[in-house]
Amino acid sequence: MRLFRPFILLCLFAALSAADEGMHPINALQKLDLRQAGFALAARDIFTPDSLCLNDAVVNIGGCTGSFISDQGLILTNHHCAFAAIQRASSREHDYLQEGFYAKSRGEEFPAKGFTVRITESCRDVSAAILDAVNSTTEYSARSKAKEKIFKELIAAAEKENPGKRAEIAEMFPGKSFMLFLYTYLTDVRLVYAPPIGIGNFGGEEDNWVWPRHTGDFSLLRAYVGPDGRPAEYAAANVPYVPRVYLKIQSQGLREGDLAFILGYPGRTFRHYPARYLEFESAQRMPWIVEWYGHQIEKMEEMSRLDRGVAIKLSSAIKGLANTWKNYQGKLDGLRRLGLVARRQAEDADLAAFIAADSARQHRYGTLLADIAACYQESSARFERDKLLDALLGSSSLLSSAYTLYQSGLELAKPDLERDSAFMERNLTRTRERLPLALNTCYPPKDRLFLGEILDKFKALPPDAQPDAIRKLPQGQKLASTLDKYFAKSRLPESDWALQLFGKPAPELLKTEDPFITLAAGLYPEYLRLREFRRANSARLEKLMADYIEIKQLCAGRDFIPDANGTLRLTWGHIRGYAPRDAVWYAPFTTLRGMIEKNTGADPYQAPQSMLTAARQSAASRFVNPDLGDVPVDMLYDMDTTGGNSGSPVLNAHGELVGLNFDRAYEATINDYAWSAAYSRSIGLDVRFILWVLADVSAAQELLQEMGR
Amino acid sequence: MRLFRPFILLCLFAALSAADEGMHPINALQKLDLRQAGFALAARDIFTPDSLCLNDAVVNIGGCTGSFISDQGLILTNHHCAFAAIQRASSREHDYLQEGFYAKSRGEEFPAKGFTVRITESCRDVSAAILDAVNSTTEYSARSKAKEKIFKELIAAAEKENPGKRAEIAEMFPGKSFMLFLYTYLTDVRLVYAPPIGIGNFGGEEDNWVWPRHTGDFSLLRAYVGPDGRPAEYAAANVPYVPRVYLKIQSQGLREGDLAFILGYPGRTFRHYPARYLEFESAQRMPWIVEWYGHQIEKMEEMSRLDRGVAIKLSSAIKGLANTWKNYQGKLDGLRRLGLVARRQAEDADLAAFIAADSARQHRYGTLLADIAACYQESSARFERDKLLDALLGSSSLLSSAYTLYQSGLELAKPDLERDSAFMERNLTRTRERLPLALNTCYPPKDRLFLGEILDKFKALPPDAQPDAIRKLPQGQKLASTLDKYFAKSRLPESDWALQLFGKPAPELLKTEDPFITLAAGLYPEYLRLREFRRANSARLEKLMADYIEIKQLCAGRDFIPDANGTLRLTWGHIRGYAPRDAVWYAPFTTLRGMIEKNTGADPYQAPQSMLTAARQSAASRFVNPDLGDVPVDMLYDMDTTGGNSGSPVLNAHGELVGLNFDRAYEATINDYAWSAAYSRSIGLDVRFILWVLADVSAAQELLQEMGR
Repeated sequence: MRLFRPFILLCLFAALSAADEGMHPINALQKLDLRQAGFALAARDIFTPDSLCLNDAVVNIGGCTGSFISDQGLILTNHHCAFAAIQRASSREHDYLQEGFYAKSRGEEFPAKGFTVRITESCRDVSAAILDAVNSTTEYSARSKAKEKIFKELIAAAEKENPGKRAEIAEMFPGKSFMLFLYTYLTDVRLVYAPPIGIGNFGGEEDNWVWPRHTGDFSLLRAYVGPDGRPAEYAAANVPYVPRVYLKIQSQGLREGDLAFILGYPGRTFRHYPARYLEFESAQRMPWIVEWYGHQIEKMEEMSRLDRGVAIKLSSAIKGLANTWKNYQGKLDGLRRLGLVARRQAEDADLAAFIAADSARQHRYGTLLADIAACYQESSARFERDKLLDALLGSSSLLSSAYTLYQSGLELAKPDLERDSAFMERNLTRTRERLPLALNTCYPPKDRLFLGEILDKFKALPPDAQPDAIRKLPQGQKLASTLDKYFAKSRLPESDWALQLFGKPAPELLKTEDPFITLAAGLYPEYLRLREFRRANSARLEKLMADYIEIKQLCAGRDFIPDANGTLRLTWGHIRGYAPRDAVWYAPFTTLRGMIEKNTGADPYQAPQSMLTAARQSAASRFVNPDLGDVPVDMLYDMDTTGGNSGSPVLNAHGELVGLNFDRAYEATINDYAWSAAYSRSIGLDVRFILWVLADVSAAQELLQEMGR
Repeated sequence: MRLFRPFILLCLFAALSAADEGMHPINALQKLDLRQAGFALAARDIFTPDSLCLNDAVVNIGGCTGSFISDQGLILTNHHCAFAAIQRASSREHDYLQEGFYAKSRGEEFPAKGFTVRITESCRDVSAAILDAVNSTTEYSARSKAKEKIFKELIAAAEKENPGKRAEIAEMFPGKSFMLFLYTYLTDVRLVYAPPIGIGNFGGEEDNWVWPRHTGDFSLLRAYVGPDGRPAEYAAANVPYVPRVYLKIQSQGLREGDLAFILGYPGRTFRHYPARYLEFESAQRMPWIVEWYGHQIEKMEEMSRLDRGVAIKLSSAIKGLANTWKNYQGKLDGLRRLGLVARRQAEDADLAAFIAADSARQHRYGTLLADIAACYQESSARFERDKLLDALLGSSSLLSSAYTLYQSGLELAKPDLERDSAFMERNLTRTRERLPLALNTCYPPKDRLFLGEILDKFKALPPDAQPDAIRKLPQGQKLASTLDKYFAKSRLPESDWALQLFGKPAPELLKTEDPFITLAAGLYPEYLRLREFRRANSARLEKLMADYIEIKQLCAGRDFIPDANGTLRLTWGHIRGYAPRDAVWYAPFTTLRGMIEKNTGADPYQAPQSMLTAARQSAASRFVNPDLGDVPVDMLYDMDTTGGNSGSPVLNAHGELVGLNFDRAYEATINDYAWSAAYSRSIGLDVRFILWVLADVSAAQELLQEMGR
């Protein structure tokens, strides 16, 4: 720890990052005194390269975290993480979303198409090699290209050295430090168990990001490998994967004040970003998203009310948008409540003073803050139009699939290392597989509506601000009938037809005369320009951010924990309530009794009858929490989590499974920007509720036995 | 206390009325052991006939409670209780609602038209005389008339004996016990102080019936009398009333767990009513009101958004409807949550078993529950149409004023004792005064809309279910243009013109050809029939309820405390939080800090700038609560209150003023039907907030001095 005592007063913002904050990178655990913190384990029990450790039980699954809980590849994760798999298995006839799913035997398990399980094998620091390559030039676009090149080279070398593994490079501090991770990917994943949605998503969007919570947000999947034990695509002959390590379940759970920790894959945080970033987010980007997502949700809910088949099709999309929509509102509320923008502005002002106070620093960092501001200013000025371009592809699966096809034609014509990453050989299968998944869940009337709305917004811009391909389209009623014709004519909804086009040369694709492929081709140069701008702007910002973090750490007199970036992290804390507002205290456990009280019988508080019946006997259950005199449902703790930590195992001091992380409290949506011991609380399921549901609601004896309960 | 041990198990419901329940009638205090409860006062200090006691400081004002807090007739009550007076004083130019009102000198005080102050002088039991008269006949309509007659005779005699006083008879238990109260009425009441609405109604309808609360719901009025010290109508020469007793203010306030008590005039409770009553309320009456009021509020809010003048005119009506609307929703929620209807049904089943278990009881009460059910059945069957008749008069001030005028013509032709009570000489002035008040706050477009809607509903009934006067009207578009003509033609909005018609003979009134007077005359026979039905039905029910309470007390083995009926009551309890739902705890004090956190700057969380400025120095205020380190705002206690208790002084064990009651928590809206130590919480202002606002926000030194602070 570097100390710069003369500046301690100046750099007050250092104090804002409390001691409890921390998503510690897995390779930095040895610096921590875990025993002192109350662990009954040492850091080496959690992660030691080339040894069997707890970390081997914790996987990334579909953007979430999961953990192995049996020697037969059984994985515990959230209901919302497996949602798309349950949705795809469901139909009007077999509504597994509504009724739940339980495969009593291996043969009944349902392929979770599109899901992969990623296991972290090892990691090493590759900062030096990358910085050498990048610093060979000063022009931003060239730096960006040099970085892409060295990434691809390092990855190719590592994968060659470790056959069957995938290498990925994670930026720990932007433009500053980099780790190369080796992963095993398992691609045959199957759905084993999902509770009825009235348990798994009890409270729905109304309770999402809210405490007190009574959601049974869990599901079980299973990873399979080829008969030779190596990763393999789905095949009937595959066998369950035998994990190196799996978690032991401790059904006594935790009590208020107990230590707990989480291993998981938190996605992204922005704790070390400058005020200008927060200004951009809070004044431009988030309000734009809140408005557009809110509108889409409203329209999709209208469509869903008319037909249960449509409702199933749109459910995953609505859930995803609604989750972000409410999260952003929580962030905007939190930013206002905490005055966070002003606080960051004050920090940056302190930093400017710290820089100015020393001529060497002034020389090196004198223009830093102004340069950062200029970067954001540039994005800001073109924001509206750029965001419309993003939304255009996002509005329609037909258009975005057409775009992917057209891109595949162009990219596959290049040598592998020069391709856009999604089209490199190592990623090609997944990119191709996603195409039918997107097309099969497409509901054309929805696409038609949103595509029309975004095009109308473009048409409202001055003609010279419109992309060429859009300027050529008619407007008003004529545009509407043109789009109707597109949807009538396009063959893309036939996903087999679409799939056979993947990778065909661009001219051949154009010959199909599919209107969406034609439109995508017309828009392509526009998106290329947008990508070029973003690449240069972020390369520039990255360089600036490296300096920013460097000087900010110097000013604070301590090293920062790197922001979350999807790599394996450890966080710990305690089971603890909080005061969300004046005169209100939230206790850290909810109960089955409280869930029954909340149950109105109408969506989203619609517990299944099987649960209501079982609940009558719950006082006699072996899963009662004696402090509460009832089966506990959810719990609250002051650990440091973010999106991606969904499905993370909550572990006790001995590393035993006692819960399942799935959400944060509303006040903690702001976690991504700042941490506070007062309000940063995450929400998990108590393992006793999971066991109670499996035992007393679903009579899933086979699973309980497999889990050793 | 009568004990019937063999039935203690049978009559389990006795246990449901907790020991803390109780709105104790002022004449029954001597039965209570107040010292034991923690009082530093004896019952005789609170109320002793013909002595100066605390009760002399507590008055009824405009349906609320108020208390004298100076020797110059200064009265403390709620902002919402004085709302109509502040509204009438306000205009687009002088928006006292918005900005607050403060009369620095007596001359600046504003007449609070329509407000009276009622002081309780004495009370005596008159049950014997009334029951003798009523029991002289068995026919219900005759019983009802006999009761009205003996009431009028007793009142006339008492008022003759006590010149200048008003006598009123209160039914303590329906059909069973009656008290005659002697009151002094002061009719010259003036507005002295109201905080800006951003304090007095901070949180508005959103926070109404909700804890945590941050509403500064207080105002100050002053009562005047003639120079001779006797009650007098408003006159410039009048002088402040010198109360016999006024309350001492204790600015140290209370702490969590402290004893507190309230003297006040709670309106109506229904704790001792049968299940059939709750069924009728929850299935028919309350849902009807919730829907119709909700609709009216929505429409009036739309109208208010367009014009601040209209907004001021409609504010009081909206506030009144919204208050009931949310209260009923709270009640309906509570009934569902507590399963109260089923609980009462079980109690009635127990009671039926208790009756059946003894042949003498069976003989006397055998048909009681069936007879009660029949009464409600009859009301229930005709409910929709009767309710439309009520809503018809309620929909339009023009129509209801026309009805009052027409009635005045008919009633004033009768001898005084035979008149409808509102038109007896002793009430005539108030009835006449209300006419211009109603007409002057009338906003004809609102009347036009609601009157049209109710008439359309009548028109949707089969023709023979329509009142004659309505059947004769056209329907659809023709009805609409007829109504437009009514509103164009009627002179009733000229309140002076209307007032001079008051009491003129009916034929003369009809000669004006005012369309509303014609309509009211046409409807009159219909309302007479409705009144006759209700009179007979309630006379029948009253007789049954007397028996019901009698046998229920016998079954419970204890005497009940009579339901609230607008007479002076004492209730005590403690400053205490509660758990509104699973994992949530509400603490019993809110703070200025919390109020500032809630303040968004937009209605209804729009604290005035003067307050925000003063709040910056609040830590140094002499009104800080040291436990909280801040000025307290509102507080929560487990006393037993209901509507009418608004404005009641909250007193400490020594009878000193420490707060001002103004609301109940959402879960306690159900108080009117059942009391629970777990959730029945009322809400008051901490006196320290009142003093802080007067001192630091409004610089009202004169008032503080008068209050001895």
